[in-house]
Amino acid sequence: MVRPEPVSRRDRPAKPPLSRAGILDAAVAIVEKEGADKLTMRRLAAALDTGPASLYVYVKNTTELNALLIDRYLVDLDLSWDDSELPRARLHRVLDDYTHLLTRQTGLAQAALVTWPNGVHYLDLLDLLLRLLHDLELDTTTAARAVDLLLQHATASAAERAAHSSNDAQELSDLQSTLDAADPDRHPTLARAGSAVFVSGSREERNAWSIDVLIDGALKQATQRRPTEGRSHSE
Amino acid sequence: MVRPEPVSRRDRPAKPPLSRAGILDAAVAIVEKEGADKLTMRRLAAALDTGPASLYVYVKNTTELNALLIDRYLVDLDLSWDDSELPRARLHRVLDDYTHLLTRQTGLAQAALVTWPNGVHYLDLLDLLLRLLHDLELDTTTAARAVDLLLQHATASAAERAAHSSNDAQELSDLQSTLDAADPDRHPTLARAGSAVFVSGSREERNAWSIDVLIDGALKQATQRRPTEGRSHSE
Repeated sequence: MVRPEPVSRRDRPAKPPLSRAGILDAAVAIVEKEGADKLTMRRLAAALDTGPASLYVYVKNTTELNALLIDRYLVDLDLSWDDSELPRARLHRVLDDYTHLLTRQTGLAQAALVTWPNGVHYLDLLDLLLRLLHDLELDTTTAARAVDLLLQHATASAAERAAHSSNDAQELSDLQSTLDAADPDRHPTLARAGSAVFVSGSREERNAWSIDVLIDGALKQATQRRPTEGRSHSE
Repeated sequence: MVRPEPVSRRDRPAKPPLSRAGILDAAVAIVEKEGADKLTMRRLAAALDTGPASLYVYVKNTTELNALLIDRYLVDLDLSWDDSELPRARLHRVLDDYTHLLTRQTGLAQAALVTWPNGVHYLDLLDLLLRLLHDLELDTTTAARAVDLLLQHATASAAERAAHSSNDAQELSDLQSTLDAADPDRHPTLARAGSAVFVSGSREERNAWSIDVLIDGALKQATQRRPTEGRSHSE
C-alpha cells in the first residue's frame, strides 16, 4: 500500500492576500446574507479565514469597517446631473435614491445614521449635493450644513422604513390608537387636531414635503446670511 | 438530627402579581444597567421570574415594550410653558431636552428612532409641540407634519450623539480626513468648499441652526397652504 504523501498546509492553494478591496467584498457578502448588524471584525476574520489581528492592519475597528462599507454601497447611486433637471427636483431624486439604497440591506440605515462614510463615492455624493445647493443660491457654509441635515433626514427615514417592514413592526394604526387616547382636558390641542392628521398622506408625499421644508428653511438661513456673506466665505 | 421540613415552592413569599407598571419598572432596571439594546422579552421575563408567555398577556412584543418604555422616560421632560417664553425659543428648549434625555441611556435613541412611543407622556409632548407650532401660525396639517420632522431630527441627533460618545467612535478629524481626500478634478465643488466648513461650529450651534431651518421651512409650507386652508382643515 502506498502511503499517501502528507500534504503540508503550505501546499494548499495560497489564500488570496488580504486587501481592503477583498476585505470589503467579504463584508458585503456577510451583510447581504445576514444583515449589517451582524458584521463584526470577528465574523469578518472568520469569513476571510484569518485572525482579527491580521484584519486590524487594514481596518482599525467595526466603525471604520462600516464607514468603508457604506461608501461601497453608494457606488450604485446615480449622481449624474444635466441641467435640464431643476436643482430642487434633482435633490429630491438623489435623496430618495439614497434612502431607498440604505433600506436594501438590513441594518445598513441604522449603521449609516451613526457613521460618516469613508471613500470616493461619498465624496461624489457630497459634491453633487453641494453643486445643487449652490445652484439654489445657498452660500457654502449654509450649503454644507444643509447637506448634513438633508442626509440625516434621508438616513433616519431609511432606518424608520427598514424597521417598519420588520415582523413585529408597529403599524400606523398603532400610532393612531395611541393618539386617539388623547384626553381633551389634558391634551386639548392634540384632541382637537385628531389623530388622522398625523397619519395622512403617503410616505412618498410626506417625504417630499420634508425635503422641501429642509430646502426652504436653508434658503431662509442663506438669505439671513447675505449681509455678512463676504465674511462667511472666508471662515 | 432533625430533618429540615421540606419547603414547598408554594410556601415561598408570593411573587408580586404582574402588572404593566411592574413590568416597566423591571424594563427600566435592565435598560439602566445594560442598555436598551439588551432589553428583550426573554431577558425581561427572567428578571421578573416568570415565563415569556405570561409577559405576552401584558405586552405583545419587544416593539410594544420599547414604545411603553420610551413613553415612561418622557415623564422627565419639562413640558410647562408660560407665555413669557417665545414659542420658537420654547420649541428649541423642549427639543434639546428631548435629545438630551434620549442620550442618557445606551440604545434608547436608536430604539426611539424606529418606535412611536405609546403613552400619556408622549401625548403631553405632542400637545405642547402642536400648541407652540399653532402659536407660530402653522395650520394643523402643517403642524402635525412639522412635529414628525422635528422629533425625527431630535431623535436622530440623539442617536448620533450617543454613538459618537462610544469608544470606537469616529472623530470629527476622521470626517475631515475623508473630505480632505476630495479630488479637485472629480469633486471640484467639494474641493473648493474645503473640509473646514463641514466641521465648523459647536454641536449646540449646529443643532439650533437645524431646528430653525425646520421651523422656517414649515412656516413657508404653511404660507403656501393659506389659499386652500379651508379645505385642508376638513381633510
